[in-house]
Amino acid sequence: MSKRPITVALDAMGGDSAPAEPVGGAVLAARGGIRVLVVGDEAGVRDALAQYDTAGLPIEVVPSRGVVSEGENPVRALRSNPDASIAIAAGLVQQGLADASVSMGSTGATMAASVLTLGVFDGLDRPALGGPFIALAPRMSVIDLGSQIDCRPSQLLSFAALGVAFSRTFLAIDDPRIALLSVGSEAGKGNKLVQETYPLLERSGLHFIGNIEGHELLADKAEVVVCDGFVGNVLLKYTEGLAAAVAHHLALTLGADSPAVAAIRGLAGNAEHAGGPLLGVNGVVVIGHGRSPATHVANAITRARDMIQRDVVNAMRNELASVLARAEGVRDA
Amino acid sequence: MSKRPITVALDAMGGDSAPAEPVGGAVLAARGGIRVLVVGDEAGVRDALAQYDTAGLPIEVVPSRGVVSEGENPVRALRSNPDASIAIAAGLVQQGLADASVSMGSTGATMAASVLTLGVFDGLDRPALGGPFIALAPRMSVIDLGSQIDCRPSQLLSFAALGVAFSRTFLAIDDPRIALLSVGSEAGKGNKLVQETYPLLERSGLHFIGNIEGHELLADKAEVVVCDGFVGNVLLKYTEGLAAAVAHHLALTLGADSPAVAAIRGLAGNAEHAGGPLLGVNGVVVIGHGRSPATHVANAITRARDMIQRDVVNAMRNELASVLARAEGVRDA
Repeated sequence: MSKRPITVALDAMGGDSAPAEPVGGAVLAARGGIRVLVVGDEAGVRDALAQYDTAGLPIEVVPSRGVVSEGENPVRALRSNPDASIAIAAGLVQQGLADASVSMGSTGATMAASVLTLGVFDGLDRPALGGPFIALAPRMSVIDLGSQIDCRPSQLLSFAALGVAFSRTFLAIDDPRIALLSVGSEAGKGNKLVQETYPLLERSGLHFIGNIEGHELLADKAEVVVCDGFVGNVLLKYTEGLAAAVAHHLALTLGADSPAVAAIRGLAGNAEHAGGPLLGVNGVVVIGHGRSPATHVANAITRARDMIQRDVVNAMRNELASVLARAEGVRDA
Repeated sequence: MSKRPITVALDAMGGDSAPAEPVGGAVLAARGGIRVLVVGDEAGVRDALAQYDTAGLPIEVVPSRGVVSEGENPVRALRSNPDASIAIAAGLVQQGLADASVSMGSTGATMAASVLTLGVFDGLDRPALGGPFIALAPRMSVIDLGSQIDCRPSQLLSFAALGVAFSRTFLAIDDPRIALLSVGSEAGKGNKLVQETYPLLERSGLHFIGNIEGHELLADKAEVVVCDGFVGNVLLKYTEGLAAAVAHHLALTLGADSPAVAAIRGLAGNAEHAGGPLLGVNGVVVIGHGRSPATHVANAITRARDMIQRDVVNAMRNELASVLARAEGVRDA
């Protein structure tokens, strides 16, 4: 390891209020001792930085040109604009000038830039999205939350390996229990994907506890729950919508200042408003919500720092390799 | 129509507290003027009925032998015991002695008995489960909620047809908007099933508004939302689990008597605790929760009565036939 301090490359052009909120987040994180390379349109970023007293803070500006927006085809956009902020941020990690990249921008663009620049682990086609997603269950990681939409059984097996390593290193959970999200608890219950994944997990050497159903998700039965990215993404977004609808309704009936309204927003929201890690790429990448205010951007930068310190990426790479090797062994035997 | 009053066959052996709660529900419904044929173990049912003053009530006992339990393979169980309560109840409808059947027992057994005895609409392989499932959105039907787990695009098209007819007749919604549950709003977004279903719905002649995402489910965008039974069942059960977990947490922090606790249970619970209709069988069939107390059983019987009066089954059969005929026409053109 070099002696330079932990350094995070921040895509300052991603998110609904870029660059103002990302820059604000960079300042907060830098005050906390994290070195931040703020990647973005130079004039805009410097204007935003000028709002703060940054004297002595470990912040540097790295110029980029343009941004890949939510609606664009990410790969095409990155090819036509290799100097887009997210591409430059990923490049800084690849060149060893930063230890992690963080963006509040398009998930697709961040994923594409990370894959093209950093590459994915052996045995993966693409990265996964996952981790704790609801404050009510801060120790439960659900994988995938929207990256791999149509999955093969081997992909769900790889989610389990990534999730176990993430839980163990990042969440400090000793022996994470793994469950398959399904529509019945018995081994034969579920869709074709779940039915075919079940025996793979049984023979994986991981701590597989079987299927769990929707109502058991918050019942502390497993620390890692695997599902395809379609189901995971619907769950993630439905939780957000349900919390908003319930909070709205309670505000109307009990009054906006009812403690229940704040409690609902807290309970059903994302645990730490810190963004989600991209699992399976050769580097630490954290993707935050486009609506993140500066404080949440700072949380995402801090999460990236924690992932670096806890060596989460290497743990995930090694766990995936062991699980895949065991699966090969089983197949060959 | 014969002049006999509307008659509902109730499976008194289904559910966690059978026959006590089903029988209690039959009494309540009969007091409301619905004729109920209580199907079950004769001695047990008569004992339960003896707890009530049933003089003059339109209740009759129809003896059956045994029950198909939750864990059994329904088709096998029905073959080996054709006199099980759910089989006798379905038979009463098939013979025209009852207009509907209602059960709080195994969903699989009710479905199997209904299919074997009453048959499904032309063009369907099996019935669907659907309807409003959360009090926050009492006008929104989600189909399928757990019957058809791995779906083909044509099945999602049929769910849309069934849902439109159900909404129009049972919920009195003039021009129900239909949406596909997906992970992005654009036409190309979603899993393979959603991508292939999209053009079928576009050409269906139905009021198709496109994809909606999880957070939009409670945003009053559509009255009929179609998804495969795996996704629907996970959503349904997750809602139940989330409401319970949030209510539990609020009870701990705000006190069990906080109005918010009751509000959460009310908002996220099933709208009317009336059980869900089985969609696509040649007869009215309502399946309630195994834990239903007598009042919910009575609601389910009343829902069955309403479905009969509103001629929901014929409307669904006709709508499905038109949609499938149009789809054929498109294919042939």
